Amino acid sequence: MRKHVETWGPATVANWGPGYDLMGAAVSGMGDRVTARWEPNGTGQIQIEAITGDQGKLPLDPEKNTAGVAAQEALRIIGVTDKDVVLTLHKGLPMGSGLGSSSASATAAAWAVHQLCESDLPREALLPALLKAEAAVSGWHADNVAPALLGGFAFIPSYEPLEVLQVPGPNELWITLVKPDISISTRDARQVVPTEISLKQHTHNAGHLGGMLISLCRGDVPRMGRAINDSIVEPARASLIPAFYEVKAAALEAGALGCSISGAGPTLFAVSNDENKAHAIADAMVETFRTQAQMDSTPTVTVIDNEGARLLQSS
Amino acid sequence: MRKHVETWGPATVANWGPGYDLMGAAVSGMGDRVTARWEPNGTGQIQIEAITGDQGKLPLDPEKNTAGVAAQEALRIIGVTDKDVVLTLHKGLPMGSGLGSSSASATAAAWAVHQLCESDLPREALLPALLKAEAAVSGWHADNVAPALLGGFAFIPSYEPLEVLQVPGPNELWITLVKPDISISTRDARQVVPTEISLKQHTHNAGHLGGMLISLCRGDVPRMGRAINDSIVEPARASLIPAFYEVKAAALEAGALGCSISGAGPTLFAVSNDENKAHAIADAMVETFRTQAQMDSTPTVTVIDNEGARLLQSS
Repeated sequence: MRKHVETWGPATVANWGPGYDLMGAAVSGMGDRVTARWEPNGTGQIQIEAITGDQGKLPLDPEKNTAGVAAQEALRIIGVTDKDVVLTLHKGLPMGSGLGSSSASATAAAWAVHQLCESDLPREALLPALLKAEAAVSGWHADNVAPALLGGFAFIPSYEPLEVLQVPGPNELWITLVKPDISISTRDARQVVPTEISLKQHTHNAGHLGGMLISLCRGDVPRMGRAINDSIVEPARASLIPAFYEVKAAALEAGALGCSISGAGPTLFAVSNDENKAHAIADAMVETFRTQAQMDSTPTVTVIDNEGARLLQSS
Repeated sequence: MRKHVETWGPATVANWGPGYDLMGAAVSGMGDRVTARWEPNGTGQIQIEAITGDQGKLPLDPEKNTAGVAAQEALRIIGVTDKDVVLTLHKGLPMGSGLGSSSASATAAAWAVHQLCESDLPREALLPALLKAEAAVSGWHADNVAPALLGGFAFIPSYEPLEVLQVPGPNELWITLVKPDISISTRDARQVVPTEISLKQHTHNAGHLGGMLISLCRGDVPRMGRAINDSIVEPARASLIPAFYEVKAAALEAGALGCSISGAGPTLFAVSNDENKAHAIADAMVETFRTQAQMDSTPTVTVIDNEGARLLQSS
């Protein structure tokens, strides 16, 4: 067993337009860190020593903190009962941004326990721990935690029983993320999603989702981008984001292959197959938020993280 | 230009459980044939000289016959205006069986015109002709005509604009088809499909459909078979088929990876990855129709036809 580890849980973009609750992907360079060490006088409990980067908003009580819940459940799955684990959570992601902030914390924490124990359980064995953590803050959905843990795109064909199919992201897929300066809670964003839809909306979304998945399997980025076309969730959530349609139009005008809301929002994502274009799209989106909604926004250009949860250092 | 051609349009299995209106696949050994020759004194019109195998049920009027409509539209697309084409249609498929009988006729007829003209248009150019023919008898759907024309599985991400993605069928995918001795019109079968569904039904079906497509792209037949799980259309149509759930249970019990209704029914399809198992499944399904519904049924064991419309002979 290791004495000390530092781990990483990546940010994730969920839904991808027509894939509500069914798919997400990990992105590079944005995420949360967790450090963990043993406390020998213990009984298999998690303690959270400190949290940085959260502006004091998150509770240290491990039962009320997504990282604590995930780590506790991971420790239970691995079967440690004779000592405690002490965590420090370093938030790198803004909360309520639609980038899987809670799932990044949960993933980094569960992976910290896994790596501290030098467990030989496969990554997938930690998924129930992450789902439980996510359920504690925003409901029973795997479209952030599965890709954060496994890397690449994760598709969830079934929740009962839970199944996850991992699909690596194509190299030439560039992602522009623009976060306007507001926050939306996942809980609120879920409440506006309709519970009844027309069969026509279903075939529209299922068709575009299927086209996206075939294109991803084939590495066809332009075809994949065109499939970002959602008749169910985007229309319901658009009104939560000032100037949504104008910013989306600006992204497409600047060369985006597709654009929609990342997870519960308010971050928008746009895809392209060229780094320079990805930056031009970012500029156009930020400018449109400024002129059409008098709102500041933060752009990031990134790519798919095909690795997922990872060990940063250990001793 | 050729003087005479004989062509083949294969039977198709549509829907595949969760893929209502979105996917179908061509199957081997079952289909309709068309022979075609020129009538030099003409103006680009289709004439239907004879139809065999239809028990006198189909009209010779080319405007009222799916083969006639498809052939006429193909001739228009190819641009022939100075002679007529004379067709004979040989029905090999029973009508109202859920095996794409009308689309097999339309496909064979349009391909006969294409081959008679020795046109260099790609196959996809004939899709609008086939959609128009299908619309004349059962509505605007491409999930039979696209795979009949192109072979393999065809997925339709979008109808406006029409897009088709072809995915070859895996070699080890065996299909058991069992047609009970009743017939259902596509029009009637479509009327029982709900026009409003719950979001939960949508995510259930879209999830299983996505899992099926990823599995097809990977050639993972067991995973593909398990994804045949439909919460929208099968429950609505099951009551049209006597003893449906008993026959499906018998198929799964006999080793089927999945089982549902082929197209609008009443034919049931079951998938497996072994020829002997496919025959055992057929026996179990026929026996269950007999004992549970006092009904005769016709079994066929087949595989995916990756070729689609083809030329059988020419002079």
